[in-house]
Amino acid sequence: MIRFAVIGHLAHTAGDFSLSDMPGGAGRLDILCRCVNTSLFLSHGMRRDVEVYLVLLGQPDPPKTILFSGERVRYLSPDERSAGSLIKKALALPAGDEFRESTPGVYIRKGGLPDLVTGFPFARLDESGTDVRTAPALPENYLLSDHLNMTEEETILAGALPVYSVGPRSLHADHTITVLLNELDRRAL
Amino acid sequence: MIRFAVIGHLAHTAGDFSLSDMPGGAGRLDILCRCVNTSLFLSHGMRRDVEVYLVLLGQPDPPKTILFSGERVRYLSPDERSAGSLIKKALALPAGDEFRESTPGVYIRKGGLPDLVTGFPFARLDESGTDVRTAPALPENYLLSDHLNMTEEETILAGALPVYSVGPRSLHADHTITVLLNELDRRAL
Repeated sequence: MIRFAVIGHLAHTAGDFSLSDMPGGAGRLDILCRCVNTSLFLSHGMRRDVEVYLVLLGQPDPPKTILFSGERVRYLSPDERSAGSLIKKALALPAGDEFRESTPGVYIRKGGLPDLVTGFPFARLDESGTDVRTAPALPENYLLSDHLNMTEEETILAGALPVYSVGPRSLHADHTITVLLNELDRRAL
Repeated sequence: MIRFAVIGHLAHTAGDFSLSDMPGGAGRLDILCRCVNTSLFLSHGMRRDVEVYLVLLGQPDPPKTILFSGERVRYLSPDERSAGSLIKKALALPAGDEFRESTPGVYIRKGGLPDLVTGFPFARLDESGTDVRTAPALPENYLLSDHLNMTEEETILAGALPVYSVGPRSLHADHTITVLLNELDRRAL
């Protein structure tokens, strides 16, 4: 299983946002929606072996984590509004400590990065890391940030994680995921 | 200059569509918006050396071509609605045979693929092509299709073009652009 966790530092944590204002009122939720797209969509079908964890840290009720399972997800189309609509439905439910399914293959729970990094051995992605093309082996779990850098607390949590790079330019999180999956696709042959 | 041309077989050709229904009423215009995003955005800034040509073939007034210039574009954010809004403004103008600027760095004209392929030596992208990682040199201009395969007429127009592949899986057009730009970024160093 390949896992991507994306931190949404300002991402809204209630289901009352407008799907027509995800960059604004929903706290750059558009970025997380694009990460769902690039993680899960192939030209004909879904990447069934990928899970995406969205760590939502914005107001009014942080932290919350939403999981999209490539194996189980339904009613998801590639456009941003489609992922946003499923996130909105998940956020409309009361969240507890355990993942609860909101729509098929989409789950929500309270909690953020500390709960995630204890569950899986994540790697970070940064231009300073080991080039994914030349690394002898690649990890299964990757941690990314939205348009904001990691906070000091997050850096401490992630500080001991191995670091990989997808290339010489600093890319958006969703583009980084695409390049990484291309490398994994090539190695899977 | 790097150029991407993306064919939108059903993409609406008037400015009267809803930004909240780009996959439906606007004829999968969401795909073209994501191609604008992946072609032009870096984490900090724009790819000033890239141009994107959107070939719109849907009703009511096909064909039309919209050009986004990475060097000149303004008022563009990464979300789909932002690109959609600039496309809508371009389509609201009367289009002639020459490109006309609708907002800074966005241009529209009548005409489709035949006009484009005579202007630039395009290459096609397809899994059957030469791997972009091993090709001794890479072209500057690439032709992609939306969720539909090329028509017979388009295949004839594009039949003599060289074919390149970004990897073993069939990817969405926007993801293909991301992988290709990563290869070009690595070669530019």
